[in-house]
Amino acid sequence: MRNGDVWDFEDAGEIRGDVNGSGVVLGVDGGATSTVCVCMPLLALLSAHKLPDPLPVLARAVSGCSNHNSVGESAAWNTLEQVMAEALSKSGSNRSAVRAVCLGVSGVNSSTDQERILKWIRDIFPSHVKLYVHNDAVAALASGTMGKLHGCVLIAGTGCIAYGFAEDGREARAAGAGPVLGDWGSGYGIAAQALTAVIRAHDGRGIQTMLTNSILKALGLSSPDELIGWTYADPSWARIAALVPEVVSCAEAGDKIANEILVNAVQELALCVKAVVQRLCLCGEDGNSSFPVVMKLSNIQTSYPAVHPIKPQVEPAVGAALLAWNYLMKESEAECHR
Amino acid sequence: MRNGDVWDFEDAGEIRGDVNGSGVVLGVDGGATSTVCVCMPLLALLSAHKLPDPLPVLARAVSGCSNHNSVGESAAWNTLEQVMAEALSKSGSNRSAVRAVCLGVSGVNSSTDQERILKWIRDIFPSHVKLYVHNDAVAALASGTMGKLHGCVLIAGTGCIAYGFAEDGREARAAGAGPVLGDWGSGYGIAAQALTAVIRAHDGRGIQTMLTNSILKALGLSSPDELIGWTYADPSWARIAALVPEVVSCAEAGDKIANEILVNAVQELALCVKAVVQRLCLCGEDGNSSFPVVMKLSNIQTSYPAVHPIKPQVEPAVGAALLAWNYLMKESEAECHR
Repeated sequence: MRNGDVWDFEDAGEIRGDVNGSGVVLGVDGGATSTVCVCMPLLALLSAHKLPDPLPVLARAVSGCSNHNSVGESAAWNTLEQVMAEALSKSGSNRSAVRAVCLGVSGVNSSTDQERILKWIRDIFPSHVKLYVHNDAVAALASGTMGKLHGCVLIAGTGCIAYGFAEDGREARAAGAGPVLGDWGSGYGIAAQALTAVIRAHDGRGIQTMLTNSILKALGLSSPDELIGWTYADPSWARIAALVPEVVSCAEAGDKIANEILVNAVQELALCVKAVVQRLCLCGEDGNSSFPVVMKLSNIQTSYPAVHPIKPQVEPAVGAALLAWNYLMKESEAECHR
Repeated sequence: MRNGDVWDFEDAGEIRGDVNGSGVVLGVDGGATSTVCVCMPLLALLSAHKLPDPLPVLARAVSGCSNHNSVGESAAWNTLEQVMAEALSKSGSNRSAVRAVCLGVSGVNSSTDQERILKWIRDIFPSHVKLYVHNDAVAALASGTMGKLHGCVLIAGTGCIAYGFAEDGREARAAGAGPVLGDWGSGYGIAAQALTAVIRAHDGRGIQTMLTNSILKALGLSSPDELIGWTYADPSWARIAALVPEVVSCAEAGDKIANEILVNAVQELALCVKAVVQRLCLCGEDGNSSFPVVMKLSNIQTSYPAVHPIKPQVEPAVGAALLAWNYLMKESEAECHR
């Protein structure tokens, strides 16, 4: 309990959230810009064989970045601990009522990442609490499927990633590797290619494009040469990705280069989904199996003729909570049959 | 004189460097990894109608990064001032002996950058001292042409840039814009594409490549997933570019992907030179004019069948000093003819 202060509320007031004593679950969506934790009662979910609408969310807390790659491990963990404590405190509950926690955290890219967070969170909660750690894309998938890990999610915002699960539990991902490692379907990728096109048109390597005037105007610069200093001044991905609307307007106005960049980005995103679907054989042996594709596209407007995209009705933190509940149910069932 | 201490030596010892009283020139090559200043006597150059061999270098001083984009303006300027003071001090001379200073500094990408440095350096030297500020590529060109600004220089190391001058003084550049802005012919560009190829092979978007084993082994990692954390841990370009030898070995061993990356990089570099040559019309109207192409290729081995590349025999700081001397000569001539 290295961050003791955040749990002080447990010694203070009365417990009123967990009124029926069956406990709560926590779902966390930890991203590069913000981290959200929701606290949901277990009984309400247990007793309803189908999910109640609206979902009973006891409390919701929001904090900053929890991607350990961006802010370092200890800052990321402090944020996660703080947001969980705040959600529990707001719900009028405490750690003794927690039955399961599911974290979907940006930056969890390998089993090593997963194990380090699991080891750390193990010390925060009583030993009987079930703990699950995933990449935040998994929480986004669960927010579209209401807690069932099946199908594929595609997220395209500042970054991009495709993540999928087969019904037998096998999982696969594509992209989500950051700008250095070629996430060209991301908002950052689109904007970086647009900036590159402006430089190339300026120095004679590329053809002229409307992007030059559009981007220079948006940034208040007078020459493409000044873009070099501008990109150096602050390399944050979100700042670059914020230029996507300029690319979209230029493409809509008929600019060939801007249009090519967007078409390439859509193809890259489609390739990410395709790679995941093929590796998991989600279409089945006959190619006709149905499976959900959850889409969270913040930055680009696009369409895939062959799939029926699901736009999540709940936020990823709720997806994570539903996931925690699903895991818990499966484990209880397994224990009953033993 | 904001950085007074570095000039304390001027009040101390005797002046012995500028023995004949005709003064000295300073040439500075300011890069992202190091900054070099050389001090050369003016008389030795003046009296020899062709350049003496070896060139009379009175002193040489070395310091760290002076790219204002990387370390900020005040640190960059302190480094430049310090390295000039050290070269003057070592040469047994001082600022009163300086006739001209030529700075070739990485990160000078626009007239705004140029004017800011000129304004700053103006306060350091007596008002009669001639001052010239360029991108460091210009010093590299001058190191190949022995101080004459004519032709094209191609630099490919961690970054890449092509820079050229027509005989009438017109100048042009291509690339040199950094990784975000698509310098794909650079060492960084080659290595970033190799890392991307490893990720794509791993997640099913790309075909298998020898680069996977080669790069993971070089970095001591066990899975491509771990590359994500590795690139985040330290985004320095030189660290990424250091993987170029792995790409070259894989290409030599017959790997298709590695070979494609190198071929693309060479084409990118050729395109940079072509853009500069065309904009400046260096080939002349009949396409037969001869012009020097200076090559500084640290990272890749390549060949251009149609040109005779000049490998510089002196370092860029000496090129900058020769440039200062050339400028000075031209201005004296112009004054004589008035």
